[in-house]
Formats: sequence, C-alpha cells, structure tokens
Amino acid sequence: MNNLIDRATLDFYLHDWLHLETLLTRPQFAEHSVESVSAMLDTAERLATSHFLPFYKKGDVQEPYQDADGAHVLPEVQNAITAYAEAGFLAAGFAPELGGLGAPNLVHSAATAYFMAANGPLAAYSFLTVGNANLIAHFGTPQQIETFVTPELEGRWTGTMCLSEPQAGSSLADIITRALPDGADELGPRYKITGNKMWISGGDHDAAENIVHLVLAKIPGPDGKLIAGSKGISIFIVPKFLPGSGARNDVHLAGLNHKMGCRATSNCLLNLGEHGGAIGWRVGEIGQGLPIMFHMMNEARIGVGLGATMNGYRGYRLALDYARNRPQGRAISTRDAVSKQIPIIEHADVKRMLLACKAYTEGALALILYCAKLVDDAATATTEDARAEAEAVLGLLTPVAKTWPSEWALAANELAIQVHGGYGYTRDFDVEQLYRDNRLNAIHEGTTGIQALDLLGRKILRDQGKILAQFALRVQATIKAAPADFAGEAAALGAAMAALQACLRDMQAANNETEMLANATNFLSAFGHAVLGFVWLDLVAHLDTTRYDLNFIEGKKAAARFFFAFEIPKIAAWLAPVSTRNGLTVAMQDGWF
Amino acid sequence: MNNLIDRATLDFYLHDWLHLETLLTRPQFAEHSVESVSAMLDTAERLATSHFLPFYKKGDVQEPYQDADGAHVLPEVQNAITAYAEAGFLAAGFAPELGGLGAPNLVHSAATAYFMAANGPLAAYSFLTVGNANLIAHFGTPQQIETFVTPELEGRWTGTMCLSEPQAGSSLADIITRALPDGADELGPRYKITGNKMWISGGDHDAAENIVHLVLAKIPGPDGKLIAGSKGISIFIVPKFLPGSGARNDVHLAGLNHKMGCRATSNCLLNLGEHGGAIGWRVGEIGQGLPIMFHMMNEARIGVGLGATMNGYRGYRLALDYARNRPQGRAISTRDAVSKQIPIIEHADVKRMLLACKAYTEGALALILYCAKLVDDAATATTEDARAEAEAVLGLLTPVAKTWPSEWALAANELAIQVHGGYGYTRDFDVEQLYRDNRLNAIHEGTTGIQALDLLGRKILRDQGKILAQFALRVQATIKAAPADFAGEAAALGAAMAALQACLRDMQAANNETEMLANATNFLSAFGHAVLGFVWLDLVAHLDTTRYDLNFIEGKKAAARFFFAFEIPKIAAWLAPVSTRNGLTVAMQDGWF
Repeated sequence: MNNLIDRATLDFYLHDWLHLETLLTRPQFAEHSVESVSAMLDTAERLATSHFLPFYKKGDVQEPYQDADGAHVLPEVQNAITAYAEAGFLAAGFAPELGGLGAPNLVHSAATAYFMAANGPLAAYSFLTVGNANLIAHFGTPQQIETFVTPELEGRWTGTMCLSEPQAGSSLADIITRALPDGADELGPRYKITGNKMWISGGDHDAAENIVHLVLAKIPGPDGKLIAGSKGISIFIVPKFLPGSGARNDVHLAGLNHKMGCRATSNCLLNLGEHGGAIGWRVGEIGQGLPIMFHMMNEARIGVGLGATMNGYRGYRLALDYARNRPQGRAISTRDAVSKQIPIIEHADVKRMLLACKAYTEGALALILYCAKLVDDAATATTEDARAEAEAVLGLLTPVAKTWPSEWALAANELAIQVHGGYGYTRDFDVEQLYRDNRLNAIHEGTTGIQALDLLGRKILRDQGKILAQFALRVQATIKAAPADFAGEAAALGAAMAALQACLRDMQAANNETEMLANATNFLSAFGHAVLGFVWLDLVAHLDTTRYDLNFIEGKKAAARFFFAFEIPKIAAWLAPVSTRNGLTVAMQDGWF
Repeated sequence: MNNLIDRATLDFYLHDWLHLETLLTRPQFAEHSVESVSAMLDTAERLATSHFLPFYKKGDVQEPYQDADGAHVLPEVQNAITAYAEAGFLAAGFAPELGGLGAPNLVHSAATAYFMAANGPLAAYSFLTVGNANLIAHFGTPQQIETFVTPELEGRWTGTMCLSEPQAGSSLADIITRALPDGADELGPRYKITGNKMWISGGDHDAAENIVHLVLAKIPGPDGKLIAGSKGISIFIVPKFLPGSGARNDVHLAGLNHKMGCRATSNCLLNLGEHGGAIGWRVGEIGQGLPIMFHMMNEARIGVGLGATMNGYRGYRLALDYARNRPQGRAISTRDAVSKQIPIIEHADVKRMLLACKAYTEGALALILYCAKLVDDAATATTEDARAEAEAVLGLLTPVAKTWPSEWALAANELAIQVHGGYGYTRDFDVEQLYRDNRLNAIHEGTTGIQALDLLGRKILRDQGKILAQFALRVQATIKAAPADFAGEAAALGAAMAALQACLRDMQAANNETEMLANATNFLSAFGHAVLGFVWLDLVAHLDTTRYDLNFIEGKKAAARFFFAFEIPKIAAWLAPVSTRNGLTVAMQDGWF
C-alpha cells in the first residue's frame, strides 16, 4: 500500500516551487524552520495514519444515529479530535497568544492534506472547528475569544457554521431565522434566536463537551419585520451548552441527513428556539453577518478544494497500487496466449487513466498550495503592493481552487473506480466510497454554478478584468521561463490565455448582465484548465535534477505533457459557446423540456 | 412527478424517425400493427409503474443476503418476474413456436426502456433470462430449448451468463474452469465442471424455481492440460437444479458482492464442482464458446446501453421535476430582494444542466432505438445488401451504443444530483442512487477501454475503414437533408466526420498496432460524439409540425442546438492527441508515477 502522500512531491512543491525557506525568513514566522516544518509534516502523516485512516470504511458503514439525547457518532471521532488537538494541529494556524504555533498557512495546509487524504469525513469536525474559531478570533471580543475559542483549540469543544435553511440554501438573503434582543452581558449583546438551520455539518454529535454554532439570523426592525435581502443578516454565537451554567441551550437536533457519502460527518437539521429562544451573542456589528462570514470564505473554499483534492489523490494512489498488482491480459503485440498475464499498469489505456489521475490530483494539490501561499503573502509579504497583489490574485483563484478539484479530482475518483474494474464497484475497496464522499464538494460552500458567477461576474467583469490582467502577468512570466523542451506547451498556454481574453472582449458586446453571465460555468471550466496549465508549466520549470531522481522528474514532465496534450485542447471547446454569447440557456423555456 | 418516459418523444422516434409502420409491413411482423405496438407500450408503462418503480429504493436499502440456503432477495423480485412474464414481455422477442410474439427488436427495446427507467436492478433478472434463453434458442438442440427455454420464458426459471473468473475478467482467454466429459444423454454431451465464476448477476437468489447458468469452461486435452487462449473455450448449460430429478447440482454460492449500486441484483461468486463436479451440457461445438457468446454480444451490449440511457433519463426527469418546484434566488436582473424567489428552472445555469441532460439522454435513447432497428434490418430487410449493410453498421455502432450512454447518461445522473443541490446528495431522493446504479455500466460487458479497442482496432483499422465509409454515407445523406435552420450544425457534423477520417489517415502512418491503438479511448469519445451529432441532426429533420406541438418541436431543436454548440466542439479536443499519435501513454513507465 502506498503512503498517504508522496513526500518527495510535497517537498518539491513546498521548497523548490513555493520557496518555503524564503517565506520562513519573514518575521511573522521566526519561530519556524525547515526542520520544524518537516517534523510537523512527519507528525501529520503519523497521526493521520494511526487515528484517521483506519476508520475510513467504518465511518461509512456505521452512520451517525439519533435518539432522545441527540446524534451519536463513532467513538473514534472524539479520539481523533483529541489527538489532533494534542499534537497542536487545531491551533497550528493561530497566534501564539491563543496557544497556537503561528504557522504559515502554506505549512498548515500541507499538514492538513494528510488528514484529508486519510479520512476527510472524520477530519471535517476539526476543520469546521478551526474555521469557526478563526472567525471568532478575528471578529469576536476578547471575552468571546476566551470563552469559545480556547476550548475549541484545546479539542474539547467543536464548532459549526449555520448558514442554510430549508428554504434558503444558495440564496442566503432569504433566511428567516429571527434574533430578538435580550439585553447584554460580558459575552456581548445577547439575543433569543428562533429558526431552522439545514445542512449543518457536525451540528450535533457526542464527540465533544460542547458545540459552538455560528448562526446567521436577522434582527427584526421596529415593525417586527425582517429586513429583506442580505443587509439584514447578522451573525451570532449559539453554544449547545451555555458557558458557565452548562445549561442546555434551546438548539436541538431535528433530524439527521442521510447522505450519499461523507457519512462519518453528522449532518443536521437544527431547530432553534422551540422552547422560547436559543441564547446567542452577536459577533461584530448588526447587518455585518455576510461580510464577516465571507471574510472567512476564501479560506473555507480553498479548504473544500483541498478536501476534494486529497480525496481524489487518495483514489489515484489506490488505483496505482491496484494497477501494479492486478495481472490481466497481454500486450497488444503479444499473440502468445501461453505467456503470463501482465499487470494492468502496462496497458496504454490504464496508463492514460492513471496519468489523468496524476495530472488532475497532483496539479490540484499544487494549485491549493499555491493559493495557501497567497494567503500568507496577502498577510505577510514585505511590501503593501505585494500584499495587495496577492490578495487580488487569491480572490481570482479562489473559485477555481474550490471548483476545479471538486470536478477534476472527482474525475480522478471516477477513473480510480474504472482502473479497479468490477472490484472498484464493490464496497470491499475504498475507491467507490471516495467517489461518493467527494461528490459533495461541488455542492457545499457554494455550488459550481455559484462559483462561476463569482468568478466571471464579480472577480472579472465587475472589476473590468484588472485582476485578471495581474494574474496574466504571472502567467507571462511562467511562459517566458518555460524550459526549452516545453516550448510547445508554453505556446499553448499563451494561446489559451489569449483566447480567454479575446472571449472576454467578445462578451463586452453583450446587451446585459443576463446574457453576459449565461455561460459563466463554461468560462469557469476554461479558465480553470488554463490555471492548471499555468501550474503544471511552472512546476516543470522548477524541477531540480540535483535534488530529485530521474523517475520523479520524468513523472512530473509526463503529467505536465499529458495535461497539455489531452486537457488544454478542451479550453477551446468550452469557450466556443461563451465567445459567441450563445443564448440557448437563456432562451430555453420550461415548456420545451 | 413526471411519467417514466415522455410518450410523445418515444412515438416521434418510433414512427416519424424510424418508420415503424414500414417495418411492420415486413412479413416477419405480420402479426403486429401500430395499434398492437401502442398497446404493448401502454402495458409496459403500467407494469413498470406498478411492479418495478415502487421498489427502487427498497432494493437499494435491503440488499440480498446469504445464508445456508443461498442468496435471498426481495420478494418483489419474484412478483415482478412473474408479472413481466404473464404480460408476455419475457417471450416478446421470441418466435411464436416458442410461445413468443415475434415482435420487432425495435418494439421490444422500446417496451424494455420502461422497465429500465423504473427499476433497472430489479429488471435485470428478466433481461439476463432473455439473453440466456436467446442463446439457447439460437444454438441449443430442440431438447435443450424445450427443457430450459420454455420454463425461462414462462418466468419460472431465470438465466445467467457465467464468463468471468477471479483471475480472468476482461481477459476471458485465461479462464481455468474445467469441463470433463461425462457421457451424453437426451440433453446432449454431458460434462462435469469445476471452477469459480465471479461477478455473476442473478447467480443465486430465491425468486425463481431454478437458475439456468450458461458457463464458459475449457475441456482439457488428452494430456489433461487446458488449451491456452480463447480457442479452448466451450459453453455449457449448468442448471442449479437438474431437470427431471430436481436434484441439487454442484454449483453453490460462495459469496455475494456488495456493490456501490445495482444492489437489488444479486451478484455472486459461484463455486462449481466442489463436490465432484457440476453437471453441464455443452451447447454448440467444442471450442465455439466465445463465438457463440459473442453472437449475442451486440444485443447484450446495446442492452447495457439502454439500461444506462434509461437510468440517466430517469435522473433527468426527476431533476426537471425538482427544478420546476424548488424556489431559490432571483433573476440576475432583479435587484429587488423583497420579490418572491423563482423556481430554479429559470436560472440559466440550471437550464444548461437540464439541456445537457436532455441532449445526452434523449440522444442516447434515439441512438439505442436506431441500433435496435438495425438489429431488425440485419434480420429482415428486404434485400441481402440491405441486411449486410445494417449488420455492418450495427457492428460499428455497438461499441458506441454500449459506451456512450455509460459515460454521458451517467454525466446526466451527475448533473441531476447537482440540480438537486444538497437534497440530491441525500438518500431521500433517487438521483444519488441512479448515479450509483449507472456507474456499473462502463465496467461490465466489456469496459470502455475494451470497447475502444473493439471500435478502432477491429471495426475500423482491421477493416481498412470500409464499414466506417458505409456509415459515412448515412451521415452524408443526413447532412444533405438537414433543415435550412440547421445548416450550421450540418456543416459542423461534416467537419467532424472529415476530422475523424483525417485522423484515421494520420494514424495509418503509425509504426505498429501498439502505437495506433494507444489513444483508442479518445478516438471512441470523438466518434461517439459525432454519432450523436448525426442522431440529433437526423432527428430534427423529421420533426413534423402537424403532428407535434410547438413546445415539443422547440425542445427537440434546442437540445440539438445545445449538443452542437456545447458538445461537438469537444471532438477536436479528443482528437488532438490521436491525430498526432501522441505516445505519452505508451512511453509512460511504472516508476514515473
């Protein structure tokens, strides 16, 4: 069995490509060194292998169940959260004054990758907790931070995000959960909250002492009415048990969702305020619920991308292992039926599938780490210009980081099943579960369609293409620096970027926003592949023959070449209806289906 | 809830497009009329809705289980088989002397579509039985037919195909099941058979009185050794209970496979001959096992394509229903947050997904019925030339009929989940099960990779492109007859066919078969899309405005236009590495991964 992540690949990304050593020279990261990072990754691998990987199948088979006490999950969940916290991973990304290590986001993301590869659904509890604690640490009062963040980072309490409601999923503006003022105390302005929250991952379970919900709700105006739209939304801390008294708060499990995959993560419908109102404390100002939530959204979405990536990567590694060990058939040139069967990895079509898996998942991992580095650069680059540029490029790439792995690492899962043949279709192997688990990622934290509108509408058209132009400078630099044996690929990337920019010019001729955004998803697909072309071309320019063996280097080059030969041509296909502003989807009528 | 199949679409395909009325004028179909066909489809819809559809979810949740008596399945399976037989569907495609209706394959396929849409995994028992009975009816002796086919067509016994073994799946030449001569009786030459058979759908269950296995095995030579390769394979009838005595034969359930989907169909590892040898009677000549099996393979593979199609079609119809009834968000042009939310079918990106589903699944259904008609033409066309041409084109299109729906109706299932959002990811809705069920179809009856080698190697290159040229004549006729408002699409189809043929010429320059076939799967993808372009263009040329309402006609035109605008451009992307004979997959080394 392969290890969870090929360490040489990870080291190549971190050191040779993203220059971690230089990053660590910044004063914010003075506590860290190449050696300490290496030790952290070793620990992540060990812990992921001992406390997460062994329960991957079990978490699928033994789903959370509900009784009068609420939701019950595998006992291994609590063990995993505790071990994760004790090893310092829950707090790794937080400031030392919160008990954290202040590690670069890049390093924390690389460590996280191990847990995502080992058992994403089990690891989800910790990642949700980190996101929750991050928001409170950023926007909460000192008392809120001490009361809620501290036990979260110690692994005693977990956290959730409560956004969706049964009637409001993608359209958060339509939430109707109400928060009525109820005075104030040392934890801030207090409210009584009533409503229903849907799709809450980790919304109830018995793997921690308490659960800290972050709840979007609306405070009624003087007329008792809710303000329409997103402007009326505020955000509240609603713990399952009240701090201090330990009394049960009025937030209860109404039901568990039974999912296609990701079953180890409990997913809940929560009722708030059935018995008079759930106590909640507001974080930040009234009406700032969405901006506060979205401040964390880049990192949450990149986190989804990382989860999708590692899920697909795991499938790739399992398929590789299977293909090396399954004898079946003979070379096309062999007519001798008496000869031994060969391992299927020797068949061209199996190699095609594995190369696609490698190009998709290793490329996606590189993209995610590239974005993780941008998070660090946006916060710690040495000039204000550099920080602003990193922030802008990060905003542009975030919808790609979220969707590209959700589509293409999922495609790797699909191919991993195919490489396994009939065996891959059975539950005796993990690849079918990996597909089912990964299928969620194109849906939650903003569907692919929503991300496409974000990319084309908000990040490109509304900005007049300025950020895109900034990103294009990075791409041009990569094209210029391409190795001589990748001149053809460099030219293809240049052509792809030119096609995207020409397509944008064509779209400016549109009559209105509806027409302009009609084929946003196709544009996202095309742009995503161009970004991955950039990533692969940039990667092969950083291959150091003195540090890596020939097999490693040939493998990376082959994956890059494969991506350009088999994938980059798809860009033209996706752009075809975009550049002609094809109006079919707008014109289509319900009655015609 | 939508009905299982839009009847207007089915009627359009059968009557306006495939000219069923003309087909029925052939003497072989004298017993049938447009009215009797219509009544048969009505019955199929009614029975599929009453005896198959209601148990779709139950079959997924309550998997077959094994105890000392063998495998147990839902009681609804037996009810469904019995009702299906009593309504005449088991025998529908058989000659009247076997108690059948002698219905055209086209009609039988259309009726079958209803059962596939309602509950493919439950319907599988009957389809396997039909395939089994078909083979025996074709190649068996009168005594074999009377003994085995008769109770099968009465719905009392079911049938299986036992090809794979644990060490021999795609590579049937490597089977090692042995058949030792054991005299002869009225059922023919008798053998004692020993071996293990894997992936046997319906291999054991308690839904019928007996199970008739058709088993591939090798008869050892005088030296006791098995003949290497496929030449040594013969085919045998091995019933679970011996006819006459009713004694238990030596074929036993060794284990059930627990699958990602298709769970209502028991899937078995069978042990033969653990207690001295399973009694079997040879069908046909020694060494003719594979040719006999493959004689049935075109129809079996088209059957897989039909199953995949209807599975995706069902997902499309459910997604359509959901999109019409789920309010979420507002039009892009609406800034008024107080306005009511709109049904998601009004969002362009949702319409894109539904149009893709429509283009994929209605296109796939048309393709399958086109192939079903070719089966009829190959048998009953009025001239020998026409029969030969139909047989040749059928051979060419069979790998497409098998794989295209397995890939693209599956893509429709995937989109149906996406249209449902989070709800689609729960098991409360059927779309996630439909995906899981359909995922099998790219694997069994020859994987996509195997089909690609069949298409490019056997059907095109080995034949010097002659059959392809025959098919191209049909395409040219369609291009010529295209309606004026589809001139652009007609030109695009012409260009696609020219690109495929240019690509074949480029490939002739290859040094060897290995190089030529390295990118066969990409070629299959490209050819498949061209075939579907042909199907859609031909369909819109047959739209009769006097027979169908404007909504119907606009819908078909929109789906056709969508396919050409969004899908046909992918052909160039797939062909790019094929026409340059890209050698990446051949050159790739195990150690480079």
